[in-house]
This record gives sequence, C-alpha cells and structure tokens, in this order.
Amino acid sequence: MVSAHSYGMDRFVVREFARQALQEDLSYQDVTTQVCVDPALAVTARIVGKEASLMVCGLDVAAQIFQVYDPDLEVSPQVAEGAYLTAGGGPIELLRIRGKAQSILTAERTVLNVLARMSGVATYTHQLVTLMNTSACELLDTRKTMPMLKVFDKYAARVGGARNHRFGLSDGILIKENHRLACGGVKPALVRARRRAPVTLKVEVEVSTLAECQEATAAQADLIMLDNMSLEQIRECVEWVAGRVPLEASGNMTLDRIAAVAQCGVAFISTSAMFKAPPVDLSLMVQGVQ
Amino acid sequence: MVSAHSYGMDRFVVREFARQALQEDLSYQDVTTQVCVDPALAVTARIVGKEASLMVCGLDVAAQIFQVYDPDLEVSPQVAEGAYLTAGGGPIELLRIRGKAQSILTAERTVLNVLARMSGVATYTHQLVTLMNTSACELLDTRKTMPMLKVFDKYAARVGGARNHRFGLSDGILIKENHRLACGGVKPALVRARRRAPVTLKVEVEVSTLAECQEATAAQADLIMLDNMSLEQIRECVEWVAGRVPLEASGNMTLDRIAAVAQCGVAFISTSAMFKAPPVDLSLMVQGVQ
Amino acid sequence: MVSAHSYGMDRFVVREFARQALQEDLSYQDVTTQVCVDPALAVTARIVGKEASLMVCGLDVAAQIFQVYDPDLEVSPQVAEGAYLTAGGGPIELLRIRGKAQSILTAERTVLNVLARMSGVATYTHQLVTLMNTSACELLDTRKTMPMLKVFDKYAARVGGARNHRFGLSDGILIKENHRLACGGVKPALVRARRRAPVTLKVEVEVSTLAECQEATAAQADLIMLDNMSLEQIRECVEWVAGRVPLEASGNMTLDRIAAVAQCGVAFISTSAMFKAPPVDLSLMVQGVQ
Amino acid sequence: MVSAHSYGMDRFVVREFARQALQEDLSYQDVTTQVCVDPALAVTARIVGKEASLMVCGLDVAAQIFQVYDPDLEVSPQVAEGAYLTAGGGPIELLRIRGKAQSILTAERTVLNVLARMSGVATYTHQLVTLMNTSACELLDTRKTMPMLKVFDKYAARVGGARNHRFGLSDGILIKENHRLACGGVKPALVRARRRAPVTLKVEVEVSTLAECQEATAAQADLIMLDNMSLEQIRECVEWVAGRVPLEASGNMTLDRIAAVAQCGVAFISTSAMFKAPPVDLSLMVQGVQ
Amino acid sequence: MVSAHSYGMDRFVVREFARQALQEDLSYQDVTTQVCVDPALAVTARIVGKEASLMVCGLDVAAQIFQVYDPDLEVSPQVAEGAYLTAGGGPIELLRIRGKAQSILTAERTVLNVLARMSGVATYTHQLVTLMNTSACELLDTRKTMPMLKVFDKYAARVGGARNHRFGLSDGILIKENHRLACGGVKPALVRARRRAPVTLKVEVEVSTLAECQEATAAQADLIMLDNMSLEQIRECVEWVAGRVPLEASGNMTLDRIAAVAQCGVAFISTSAMFKAPPVDLSLMVQGVQ
Amino acid sequence: MVSAHSYGMDRFVVREFARQALQEDLSYQDVTTQVCVDPALAVTARIVGKEASLMVCGLDVAAQIFQVYDPDLEVSPQVAEGAYLTAGGGPIELLRIRGKAQSILTAERTVLNVLARMSGVATYTHQLVTLMNTSACELLDTRKTMPMLKVFDKYAARVGGARNHRFGLSDGILIKENHRLACGGVKPALVRARRRAPVTLKVEVEVSTLAECQEATAAQADLIMLDNMSLEQIRECVEWVAGRVPLEASGNMTLDRIAAVAQCGVAFISTSAMFKAPPVDLSLMVQGVQ
Repeated sequence: MVSAHSYGMDRFVVREFARQALQEDLSYQDVTTQVCVDPALAVTARIVGKEASLMVCGLDVAAQIFQVYDPDLEVSPQVAEGAYLTAGGGPIELLRIRGKAQSILTAERTVLNVLARMSGVATYTHQLVTLMNTSACELLDTRKTMPMLKVFDKYAARVGGARNHRFGLSDGILIKENHRLACGGVKPALVRARRRAPVTLKVEVEVSTLAECQEATAAQADLIMLDNMSLEQIRECVEWVAGRVPLEASGNMTLDRIAAVAQCGVAFISTSAMFKAPPVDLSLMVQGVQ
Repeated sequence: MVSAHSYGMDRFVVREFARQALQEDLSYQDVTTQVCVDPALAVTARIVGKEASLMVCGLDVAAQIFQVYDPDLEVSPQVAEGAYLTAGGGPIELLRIRGKAQSILTAERTVLNVLARMSGVATYTHQLVTLMNTSACELLDTRKTMPMLKVFDKYAARVGGARNHRFGLSDGILIKENHRLACGGVKPALVRARRRAPVTLKVEVEVSTLAECQEATAAQADLIMLDNMSLEQIRECVEWVAGRVPLEASGNMTLDRIAAVAQCGVAFISTSAMFKAPPVDLSLMVQGVQ
Repeated sequence: MVSAHSYGMDRFVVREFARQALQEDLSYQDVTTQVCVDPALAVTARIVGKEASLMVCGLDVAAQIFQVYDPDLEVSPQVAEGAYLTAGGGPIELLRIRGKAQSILTAERTVLNVLARMSGVATYTHQLVTLMNTSACELLDTRKTMPMLKVFDKYAARVGGARNHRFGLSDGILIKENHRLACGGVKPALVRARRRAPVTLKVEVEVSTLAECQEATAAQADLIMLDNMSLEQIRECVEWVAGRVPLEASGNMTLDRIAAVAQCGVAFISTSAMFKAPPVDLSLMVQGVQ
Repeated sequence: MVSAHSYGMDRFVVREFARQALQEDLSYQDVTTQVCVDPALAVTARIVGKEASLMVCGLDVAAQIFQVYDPDLEVSPQVAEGAYLTAGGGPIELLRIRGKAQSILTAERTVLNVLARMSGVATYTHQLVTLMNTSACELLDTRKTMPMLKVFDKYAARVGGARNHRFGLSDGILIKENHRLACGGVKPALVRARRRAPVTLKVEVEVSTLAECQEATAAQADLIMLDNMSLEQIRECVEWVAGRVPLEASGNMTLDRIAAVAQCGVAFISTSAMFKAPPVDLSLMVQGVQ
Repeated sequence: MVSAHSYGMDRFVVREFARQALQEDLSYQDVTTQVCVDPALAVTARIVGKEASLMVCGLDVAAQIFQVYDPDLEVSPQVAEGAYLTAGGGPIELLRIRGKAQSILTAERTVLNVLARMSGVATYTHQLVTLMNTSACELLDTRKTMPMLKVFDKYAARVGGARNHRFGLSDGILIKENHRLACGGVKPALVRARRRAPVTLKVEVEVSTLAECQEATAAQADLIMLDNMSLEQIRECVEWVAGRVPLEASGNMTLDRIAAVAQCGVAFISTSAMFKAPPVDLSLMVQGVQ
Repeated sequence: MVSAHSYGMDRFVVREFARQALQEDLSYQDVTTQVCVDPALAVTARIVGKEASLMVCGLDVAAQIFQVYDPDLEVSPQVAEGAYLTAGGGPIELLRIRGKAQSILTAERTVLNVLARMSGVATYTHQLVTLMNTSACELLDTRKTMPMLKVFDKYAARVGGARNHRFGLSDGILIKENHRLACGGVKPALVRARRRAPVTLKVEVEVSTLAECQEATAAQADLIMLDNMSLEQIRECVEWVAGRVPLEASGNMTLDRIAAVAQCGVAFISTSAMFKAPPVDLSLMVQGVQ
C-alpha cells in the first residue's frame, strides 16, 4: 500500500552505501561466525518483526545489502513493501533468506539496523499522515535525517505517505532566518535568489510573522514556510495569501496539533518527527539447515 | 560530569567521517547560501539546546566537522562535555562559532544532526544509568547502532554513563542463538571459539535457560548473556553461577524493569534503548555580524 | 565583471576534486621533476594566457589545487575572476605562485587543464550572452558537462553570464521525450511528477509541438522547454502561453540564430554550446629563483 | 578501421571510473525517472549520432557504464569501434540497449557525455592523421587531457590514429623549459635524468633552438622535442641530427601547417588539438516497449 | 592440513582489498599486455611454487583477485589450502586459471605478490609451531604486520598454526611500557583499563620484572606479557603466578630458543618472526592456448 | 649518503597512503591509549634502531604519517636519510617526536611498520650494491614489491643504491615469456610493441637463449633482459650484442653470485632480493613528560 507520493530508491546508490555500512561493522572479519560456523553450511533464515504493528519498509534494500555481501544469497520478501502489518498469533515474517550460514549471520546486523530504521520512519510517518486524512494538506519531511542515511530516510518517509522536501543543500532553495539576517531581510534575499538560482529550483522562504509573509508573497516566493506560528497566525496567513503561493506550516507539529494545523488550509505541513521515531524491533532467525 | 566509563573519540576517525557526512548533504553546493550570502561576511553564531534538560555530547565532534569544512572557523564550547543541563530562563547555549557566514550556514545541518543524535543518546543513557544507581550493576550498550554512526553512538553511550559492549564484528566474540544452532549447541560452540579466537577477545555466549547457563559455565565462557529471562530466571542463574562467570542480562530492559534487574546481582545489563532515543532539539542562530 | 547570475563554488567540494585530479596525473610520482629539480629550490612562477582575449575563470580553483598539493605554496591572482582580458603588448598574466619549484611543476598541468577548461567555457558563454543583450531572455546551460567536472563547468557558465539549469539528476525534474513515451504522454507524466516530486523542485516538460505545449500549460508545468522548434513555432507558443508559464527554447542554438530566438519572447534559451568550446591556451613560466 | 597504434582500454579501470561518473550525476537519485517511469517497464533504446560524419569511439565503454549501473542491461554495438561513419538518409545508429527503462534513462547522460567526448577526440585525430598520410611522420597526443578522463582521451587518440605520448607524470621523462631553468641547462638536466630515471623510461628534452638541440643530441637524449620552431628551424635540426635521435615537433600544429611540418622529416608531431575538439552530437531514443 | 586455530578470511574484505591492489599496479593500463596480446586469445595458465618445500596459503584470495579483475576467469586450486608441499620431480602446481590471456597476465603480478607473501608467512609459522610441538604452549602473532596486508598476514599465521593476537588497535587492550609510563605504573593502568574498556576485550599488560608480574596478577590482568625475559625469569613468573593468569612470553623468540621457552610453562609465546619471513618463490606460466 | 640514483617521494602520495594505513590499524579507535592515557599529557619520544647496523630510510615518511594523524606533532630526524649507521654503545636514535602522548602512541605501530620495512629494503640493497662496487654494472629492482607499498619499496631501493626498474604496468614495456607465447615469438612481439607503445617508454624483452637475444637485438629492442642464464651464457650474449643494446641479467642473483655476474659486462642486474629482506628492528620509547 505504498503511498501516492512514493517512488523507488536508486539501486546503484544503495549498493554503494551497502559497501560502506558492511565495512563499518566488519573491520577485519566477523570473528564469531568465522570461528564457530562451518563455511559449507547452508541455511534458511527469516527476518521477523516483533512489534504489535508496523509498516514494513526497506525490503529491497535488505536484499541488496545481503547480496553486496554475498551475491549468492537468495532473498525473498514475504510481504509487500509499504504494507501495514499487525501481529496475529506470532511474529510478522518479512523476508526469507537462503544461502551460506556464514554470509547470513555476518550481514545480519547491518541489514537489520537499516531495515529497522526505515520501517520505524515509515510507521511513524503513516501515523502522522493518518491524522491528516480529512484535509487536502500534504505532509512533508525535512533535512534533519540521520547522517549518511539520507536517501533511506527520505524513501521511508515517502513509503509512509509523506512527500519529500529537499534532500540536501543542492536540490532546493530554502531561505531561513539566518540567511535573511545575513542578507538584510526577506525581500533582498528573495531578489538575489530569484535572479541567481538554477531555474529548476523553487525559491522558498521561511517567515515568522504575517508581515514577513506579505513581504514574501509580494516578492514572489514560490513557497512560503510559516515557522512556528500559532493556529491563529497560520489562519491569518492563509487568508491573506489567498492561494497565490502555497504555504507550508512548520515547527512543533505534535500528534495532537497536526490535524488542527492541517485544517487551517495550508498546502503542506513539514516535520522531522518521523526521523526521531524509534526503529522497529526486528530479528533474524535461522530456520533450519538446508 | 563525564562518566567513569568514558574516554575520548579518535579525532582522525572523526575527521574522515566528517568529510563523508558533509559530502552527503552538499552534493554540488549549498545553493541557498551561495546565492544569498556575501562570501566576505563574517559572523558569530551559537548553537543552543531547546529541551527542558539534556546531557550535552559531541562538542568536540561539532568543532571538528566545522573545521573540516572550513579550517578557519573558530569554535568555542560554552559548557563541558557530558554536562547535564537544565534550561533556566532561556535556551541552553552549547557552542559559539566565529567565521565566514557561508561556512557556518553550510556546515550547520550536518553538525546539528550529529550533535543532536549524540546528545540524545547520552541523555537517555544517563536516565537509564540513574535508575541503576543503587546497585553495582553496570549498563552496557549493544551493536544496534545507527549505520555509519557507530563510533559516535558508542562514545555517546559512554558519556551517558554506560560501558561499551563490542563495537563491531571484529572486537568481541558473541555466540548467539543462531551460532549455537549452526554449531550444535553451547558447548561445541564454546570449544571452537576458545580454541580459535584471538587471545585478546573474551568469549561470550548467549543463553536462554538455566540449563544452557550451566553448560556455558562448565565450558568456561568468559561472559554469559542471559537473554530475555524473567527476574526469577535471572536470579536462579546468578545464584547457580555464584560469581564464577560475570553475567549480563539482556532483552526487554524497559525503564520500569531495569532497576529490578539490576538488583538481581548480574554484573551487567545490556540494552540498545539509548540508540532508539530521539535526538535532542538544537538550533543554530546567527548572533550578529562581526 | 562577474555576471548577475554568478555565485561561488564550494571550496570543500573543490578540494575533494583536487585530490582525485592530482592522483590521476601523478600515479606514483612526477618522475621528471623528482630526478631533475633540487627539492630545496624555491621559485616564483606565473600563469599567463596566450589568447588574443579571454574571460578568466577559475582563479580560486587554481589556488586550491596548488595548495591541496602543497599547503605552503602562495598563490596570488593578478586579475579579477570573470574579467574579460585582451592581450596588449604581451601575454596576459593571471596568477603568480611562490614556493617550492618541485611542487609548482608537479601540480602545473592539473591546474592548467582545469583553468583552461573553465576559462574556455566562460569565454564562450560570454560571447553567447553578448548576442542576447538586447532582450530580457536569459541564457541557460544544460547537463551535457564534461564528466567529473560538473561543478566547474556549471560555475564557469555562471561566470560567463549564463544561469544554471539543473546540475544533475536530483536537482530538477525534466520530463523529456523518452519519459513521455514511457509514461503515455505529456499530461500523465506531469500528473505523476506533480504528485510525487519533492516540493522544492519545479516540474519542467520538453515539448516539440504547439499542441504539446498547450497540453503542458493546461497540466500546470512550472516550465516548458520548446525543443528544436523553428522561430515561427516558438513565436506561436509564446503567443498562446501568454506568460502563464515561462518558456525555454532549446536545440540548435547557433551563434547566428540565438539573437533571433531571444527576440521571440521566451524567458530562457538553453544550450550546451559553451561546454563544447575549446579550452583557452595557458602556460606556466618559472620566473626566477627566489 | 582501428588505427595501427591502437589497443584497448583496461575494463577494470573503466568500471572504477563508471562508478564515480554515475555518482556525480545521480547524487541521490534520478528524480524524473523515478517519479514518471514504471519500474517494471522494459524497453529497447538506441544511441544515434547526429553529425554528417564521425569516427565512433567508446562503444565498449558505453556498454560498461550501462552495466555498472544495471548489470542486467543488454548492450549491442551496431557498428565497429573506430569506424568512420557518414550519415546516409538518417541518423547513424551506434548502439542498441535493452532492459529496464528506468536504468537506461538514468545512465543515459553519463554514457552520452563520455561517448560524445571520445568520438569527438577520435574524429578530430582522424582528420589530423589524414593530413599527414603522405609522410612517415607519426602523430602524438599530449598530457593536456580533460581532468579525470585521461585514459578515455588517450584511447580515443589511438583509435583516431595517433600514438600516445606519456599518460601522466610517472610514465615518461619530459624535461621542459622550466626544468632546464631549475637545473641549469639542457646538459645538466639530461645528465641527472639519465643517471636517476627508471631504466624503462626514455629521457626526452624540449629545446627551442638549434644550439639546444645540438646540446641535447650530444648529451644523448632519447627523444628531442622541437618546441614552437619555424619550418626552417625544424629542417635545420632534422639535418643536423641526421637520424641519431628521433625528433618530435610541437607547438602551433594547425590544420594548415601540419602537413608541411610532417614533410620536414621529423619522426613525430605532437599536439593537443584533438583534446580541444568538440564532442560529437549524440542522442538516445527509446525505440519501443518490449 | 589447516591448523587447529585456523578459520577463513572474509571474502567481502578480500574483494575490497583486491580493487586497491590492482589499481596500484595498473595505474592506467597494462601497456605490455595491451600492445602485445590479442584481446580474444584464451589460455590456460598455472601458478607453481619453485621452493623445495612450502606451505601453501592464499588460494582462495588468489582466485578472488583474478575474479575481481575479470569475473569470467575460472580458477581451480590444485592443492589444499594449508598443505605442506615438497617438490618432487618438478615445480609444485598450486592453481590453474582459464580465460582471457590479457586478464591473466595483467592480474598475474598482484596475485603472485599476495600469494607469495601469504605462503611465506604460513611456511615460517609452520616451522616455528613445529618446534613447539612437545609442549602445550601456543604460538601467537603480533601487530607488526605489513601495512595494508593485516588480514592477509593474520590469516596466513593461522594457517601456519599460530593463533592470532589482536589485529589492530580496536580489538584488544595491551598496556605496554609506554602506557604504563604515561599512566603511573602497572596497577593504575590496569585499574583504568578494567573500569573503562569494552567488556568484550581482555586486558593484557606487558611486564619486564617479576615484581611487575606480581603487581599485574594482583591487579587482575586477564593476560600478562613477559617482555624480553630470560628463561630463568620466565620460570620464576610461571611459578609465582601458578596458573592464576595466562602468561605470554615475548621478545627475542629465535628458532633456537623457542622450544626452551615453550617448556617453561607459559601458555603463549608471541613473535612477529613470521612477518619477517621472505615470500616464497612463485611463477605463473601460460600453459597453452585453449 | 643517499645513492646517486636516488630522489625523493611525492609527499602528496605519502599523505594519501598514510590515511589508509592509519585507518587499517585504528578501525574504531586505539582503545588501550584512550582508556589509559590522559588526553592532555604531552611527551617526547624517540624511535631507535636495535640492529647492529642499518641504513636508515623513511624518515620523512615517518614524519608525514605522524602529522597526518595529528598535525600538531613535531618530528625531528636525528640522522640523515640514507645514512648507514652502526650501533656504538647503545641503540641508534633515528627520530624524536614531541606532542600529545595519545597521538604518538596511536600512530606508533603504523609508523614503525613502514619505517622498518623501508630501512630493511634499503639496508639489503646497500649490501648488494656494495658487492657490485668494482664494476660499472648498476643494480635494478623489480615489480615484486609488497602490495600497496610500491612507492615506498621503490624509494627504499633507490636510497640503498639501486636504480628503479618500472613501478607498475603503465610505466614500462616488458615482454616476458608469457607475452611471447601469446604473440608468436620475440620478433612479432617487438614489432607490435614498437609500433603501438607510447613513445616515452622503452621496449624491453626477456630472453632465455643466445638465439632469442640475437633475435631481440635484430628487432631493435631498447633493452634485453637475460633471464636465468649461466655466467657463460651471459658472457656470450654480452659479446655478441657488443654494446648495441643494454643488457640486464636477471634471476637467481644471490649474494655469492652477483659480483661475478656484474663482471660479465652487463649494464644492469635486476633482483627482487631487497624486497624479500626482513624489516629492521625498531622501537619507540617515551622519553619523558614535557
């Protein structure tokens, strides 16, 4: 049930990441597996979720990491990417892996750590999006991702139902308070940005008062972020802008406030709450010897 | 108030990480800063914490990242690493930075994301450790760290008062259930490991019953992990082992259970709960033009 | 006389590139310099342009490459970045370098190759932009840059007076003919893109007929690229769109045609002609022993 | 019709390059393709040349880049490497690719940029070599290659009919004017080089007068480069040296002068003109859905 | 006849190394093979040992390097890893390789250099271990490995019959004389280490007198290294410690002394002598055209 | 007393190597130093040689590695690079280092391993060269270097008095037996190589009989390697060639044979014996607290 905003991750990018993450955990070798497990032993293993419910995210990433480590591992998803699963009588089976026991056990922790993070982000995003269901307002993520995991975090947010804000510093203009200070205000910053920025990028500006919002509208921002405003302030801005520029409400988007903000008429709510959500609880179990 | 278990991070390793993390966020450039901010402008900025309380962790890491990006930035910590801070009348100032506005704004997000993660881990660890204060039991972390952030997560756990379990697959032997299955039981696994493992590594084995614990003790494990046992089971193991081997209780270490487990007489409790804790809320504010 | 669209390059990104480019040329060592030149010898050298005229571009990049190779080299620009220079009685002096003769001679070729490329791109861009002076139309570049030199090529285009189109595949949506084919037409492609794309990116679509242009306008493209159209077709599109969407004319933008296209009323003309321009002719001369 | 001097490129080296060049363009992802194109869609595409005539170069490199990105792509050359092709009734088909539409579209620009550069270099080299056909003089390239594209540029020069001069700083001794200055003249430089250089490398020296050429001959240079000499000066040197040392004429080798220089009796003419030639015009067209 | 202490190397780690080692030797290309050998030619080749006797080590590593260079090469070991081989009527055949002649010849030297080093280390280790056969004492290696070849050196020592000491700085605590000096003695150093070190690591301390050995025993070292002691001193320490802590004798372990030390009753003898052993003499011969 | 053939190493290349070698040993951290040594403690340390005599090689490399790890370390050589030193009353002091105790102890092993290897190679080379003193014959090294240490091994051979043969596969043509087999003999291989090879490279061919040597001379090899010939065969070849082509004797160059071969009149003797020599014995001692 992948969300309307969702699309895939680049597999080439995933493979390059997998090499680094595996090296981080390996250093020289998986000494436990090497000393204990027969190199010829082949097994079937499964990865299961131990939460009451979760949205699964990262199945193909998990397969890629296993196969970067050992191209001969066979990995079969047991559920659909983005499915929201509820534990019935037992743990939720997500993936099945067949191949050398050594390879499966050595790559296990790297795979689980990534998959648990991604599913945690997707699950929490899904909860936020569900709260906004009755409005046309879309949920956006932010750039407060976990360092080195940007493409994974962003993808998981999409799977959970959010739409992505910019990924990094190159793919979006976002004039924040510090830029305005350095630049002498909303209007001069927008003028500079509109004249110089690559034409493929929208120019967004963060404002914290109605007056700044008016200045940004007049100076033809493509998108205006209402930063840490009260519901009342947000409504005033929505009313004044009257659809000329899409508005994005940001800051303090707690679970109990988000639905009310969405009702104010902004086009977007942005939050990094999904990137603060805990990873889901997963484990890998060797099922039996082949 | 850095913990008794704490020690520093290797600055060479931090600098190598900083290069990668900065590249991840930059791609081609920080387009907003480049188009808006005068390259000659120099400012002072400060990083503040917006939580009611937090344990600060990562001050030197923050300085390193800023200086890998621009060696001319001057970074001055305003508090001590590992200090547990409480907001008084305003936000808690952690760091002050002087130098080019462009450099500070471009490196800002990478620095904040790392510092927020590290302080989040340290803060939560500190809470756990505080619960265990009345026993001699030590808190350990696990290998369920955020991929690519292992040395940062592990250091933050130390600052928070935990002691490190192994970092990766090379620096500890931990025979888990899957290894035992692949190996034919606790004893054969221990025999293999004790014969083959590098002599500098302890051999630890995970057990889930008293019988397995007895087998592990007889087979001279250096450390025994009691996995997901009830308080009663843990007490039985402690009693039976009677100090011959240090015991580590693991699994389901919630805030309301951890003190009781610590009272059971195990030497260690291990958990990855600190690595699931949310990052703290930080922001960087340009203070003024120099 | 840096152009209105221009802004700087990220120096961190330049330094990372410099390491790779130096390694490419060095392999093991600069054997000629090592066998011939006294390691203690210090000299002054200068880099001069041997063209009748050129726009200089890349002075700071040159300095960075020299200093990545040897941090003790002192590099002083003799002209301003983006200056359009004409040879008077002799060659045009661009840069002066002081330091170890070995270091200067070893880094020489890498520096010259980058500087010659960048100045060649800027010089040609400047010629194109000059032809468009009498209209409000802006010149854009494309993604047909030299592999591995993207940020250098894009910066040189800015210095020459062009504005950047997207840098790579992440920082702009451009629906080309192949995407439309794969997607079933202009409208379905735009619908998908508008629903899914990161909100910071404009959605641009390439069209080749007036009908497609009308379809793109109706489907709310943020930017429409008129691909390989005749002057007449371009004028028809401009008239029909009537300012609702900015138009970008592309394809076959030769020196003798560009002014006429600019007069048609499109907002932008895009071309990769500047990236096909030859590098300028530069050389480095050791001036004298210090 | 690959030239007599030609030989292949190392495929391992090409694959390592491909990873970097793809990453440069991708950053996080090909957002257009991801949002627009069905991941399951498979197509056939072809790469065609849009020049009146061209020498094709880089077919195997193109295949390698596609397959580094997606190992399941099938790539079939439609012409022979090094063929000199003339457009008949339509564009010249160079390569056919079958596989996932997403993969083909994402790797497209990186492949085209490399292939266009290589074919541009080969085509221009071929023109130069054709002008020298009536003499025994061989055309050499230089080290003024595009940074990071050295092995591609050098290979393309071979395919076009040139022979390679040294690739980088490690695989040839070339004592240039700056080295002579630093060393106190032609003879002392040659003496040092002949005593110290690896025995597998020839020792070449650049001279600009007959007197220097005589000094170089006496000091047993393996190769003498006549730098920027007039036809008359070149003839004098050829006559005086009388075959004892091979001579290489260099500098100002324009299309209208090169044949005359070749007739002077030098063994080699070296130029970087082919590396200043524009890339050929190529495009990739999705042919149809499989 | 792989030793009791032996276990495999991580193949992922080997492949990453292979890429670097191949690049080191290739730089741009194998020019000899490219200019001389037909790219279509396929051959069978064999690698033979030219020593009177040797212990073969690195067969799978050799296969991995060949296949990282060219995945289509077929590599078949002709003997068992760890076999101790004696030349009969001719050279000892170790490996057979089938595939493109170009690929085999280009990868040849990198493969041979690694295989010769590994077999040299294993052979010498085997000699040392044989001298200790009559005692229960085990031979350990050290961290004086060849830079960049750590995992290969350590594996070869295992194959030869040694057990590994720590691999690097992360996977073992070894308090040496310099640490004691910096720390104020054996006891304070041990106290700090026991309180702070990761619990999976043993704490070893180096001592040079009986008094220090007593201090280390009292302070509960997990392992004590007797550094450069006479046989008499070693015996005194063994007697005094009486099995409470395992002892490791180190320093000056020559072939004629090692058996005597082993008889003293220490658990371990450590030496880096195997890492100073010369590589064995190997060569690759093309057998015939396929 | 650096040899006539000697010249320096590229410091940029050394620094890149240092980063990799330090990472290999560090993995996550130097746990011993971190847990035991006060981060603020500054000391002076010295590196001493414990051999009766040695030729010191790698002093600047040692300094570079220390400073890549910690730019604030001060490193002062106590002897001259290439000096042949004999122990008098105590160990030979090579280097003095001042700075943070943590930094010195962490980088210690990487520095010592490189310095010991380099001095070992130089010392052995010096012994070989000394044996050849009475002839004009020069000693050459080979490509049988330690993987990843090529530039260090080659430099050490120069310091010891040898001249370098080619470094890798790109900087020399060496037609070996396998190439001749694949190519159909000495002459066809030479013809191909002379036509295609970069003009800066000499074409060398390996021969094993007088007939092949004659064929190589006739086909204008630039250098002929006499492979594994008897003294008598070598003399026959020298006599027949009569100075038309330089000859290089190779194979089985033991200490007791090398002088006799040198007397045969060959220009060069090549051997990899110096790369099989053991590292010298070095240690680092903390001298005192600053």
